[in-house]
Amino acid sequence: MKVVLAKTAGFCYGVKRAINIAFDATKKGSDDIYTLGPIIHNPQVVEKLKCSGVRPVDSVYSLDTGTVILRSHGVEKNDLKEIKNRSLSIIDATCPFVKKAQGYAQSLSVEGYKVIVVGDADHPEVRSILSYVSGESQIISNTEEVKKVKKTTKIGVIAQTTQSIDNFIKIASELIKKSKEIKIFNTICDTTTIRQLESIELAKKVDCMIIIGGKNSANTKRLALICKEINPKSYHIEVAQDIDFSWFFPSDVIGVTAGASTPDWVIKEVVDKLTGGNN
Amino acid sequence: MKVVLAKTAGFCYGVKRAINIAFDATKKGSDDIYTLGPIIHNPQVVEKLKCSGVRPVDSVYSLDTGTVILRSHGVEKNDLKEIKNRSLSIIDATCPFVKKAQGYAQSLSVEGYKVIVVGDADHPEVRSILSYVSGESQIISNTEEVKKVKKTTKIGVIAQTTQSIDNFIKIASELIKKSKEIKIFNTICDTTTIRQLESIELAKKVDCMIIIGGKNSANTKRLALICKEINPKSYHIEVAQDIDFSWFFPSDVIGVTAGASTPDWVIKEVVDKLTGGNN
Repeated sequence: MKVVLAKTAGFCYGVKRAINIAFDATKKGSDDIYTLGPIIHNPQVVEKLKCSGVRPVDSVYSLDTGTVILRSHGVEKNDLKEIKNRSLSIIDATCPFVKKAQGYAQSLSVEGYKVIVVGDADHPEVRSILSYVSGESQIISNTEEVKKVKKTTKIGVIAQTTQSIDNFIKIASELIKKSKEIKIFNTICDTTTIRQLESIELAKKVDCMIIIGGKNSANTKRLALICKEINPKSYHIEVAQDIDFSWFFPSDVIGVTAGASTPDWVIKEVVDKLTGGNN
Repeated sequence: MKVVLAKTAGFCYGVKRAINIAFDATKKGSDDIYTLGPIIHNPQVVEKLKCSGVRPVDSVYSLDTGTVILRSHGVEKNDLKEIKNRSLSIIDATCPFVKKAQGYAQSLSVEGYKVIVVGDADHPEVRSILSYVSGESQIISNTEEVKKVKKTTKIGVIAQTTQSIDNFIKIASELIKKSKEIKIFNTICDTTTIRQLESIELAKKVDCMIIIGGKNSANTKRLALICKEINPKSYHIEVAQDIDFSWFFPSDVIGVTAGASTPDWVIKEVVDKLTGGNN
């Protein structure tokens, strides 16, 4: 089998930065380092960091001492306040693009806009963005949901940074009908868009697509969804062990891409397994 | 023949207001009253006002004394400056919705947005709105023209107040792809939208449509265009004399609508002629 690996597969800037920050923190000798939830949505990386002393916790209320790393998806405003109240040390590994979206959410809200975030309701990034809104807000994930949006004087729109650009534009276009004044910030990070576009092109050319990344990773799930629309033989896996060779014919060309939180070593193991080490 | 007259046919708020202001001005006894260009786009009304002493002029530079009525479509910023320089008296009959659009154009420009006006390049309202832009600007009248718009950091969008809502939404939706930050003001006046929607419904039900209004009236031309898309037997006329009875069968039901600058007496003459005075 021939394997074609997408150039854009794997870590994005924000994830790379967060992991580097976390590993750097462990080098300083402290063994009281925590993240609120996993630092990125990849179980393999989280496990590696655990071995180095970075422990994910579910709630800030369980911590009395130590250092909290603010994870790539950002932290909710109230949690940040509580971290400060408890005099815990803070290392900020929030993705700069998420931080920008938080800032837009806050300023739109202050300016009187109803803030609509195009994204997944349960995603920590969306929750962190919305925590900066003081007024009205709503989460929309598809055009069907726009029908439920009431007409409002001023609507502000931002996106989860890993949204599909197509979905965002469709939703924003529908929202124009809902207000006389609408301010739209396309906060999707360019890496996400470029990765999605490359994956679409690759999915068109190959027999099968493998999309590697955490099953809890929203951007990987979206990538898998986009690929499946183009190529029904698209499979979302986490690690090389998940590969099922009954998916392929020996003559198949396999396209491989990976989410923003998928480390290089996991991608390498998948490619090695697919090619029998002859890549 | 049966005639169905649209409820929304005829004068809008801004036109009614402008004409009242102009006739009120003539009552004050001055015979030095001017407008820069016609006060509204209806030759019959302009003629009536001329008889009462309100004369349209092409340029402010031809005036040294008297009163200038700022017409419903608004006046370009430089012309207004020149009117003031020449110490002419000013009566402002600018439609409040146009004034609002001028204000948005100015504030968007000050805030660093490239201002895009969805409208007709040669229309005095569009020219008056754009005269308040200090930075970059562009006029777009259809989605095809959006392709020529370069990607820009910040785009601000406003509409000529009498644009078709469908066209505006289509263009604004396409423009979302052109910038990371886009602020959209739907400055189409509600009367225009309601009139267009009622005319569409009427055009679907009747055998023929008659659209009454100045041949120089952008909103009437647009109304005629919208009706023609629904009902090919749609005719744009200015006055009752323009009716050609070869357009109809005796059993036809005729829908009648009229642009925002069409006076009631012109509409009445048309309906009377169509029904032989039996309405």
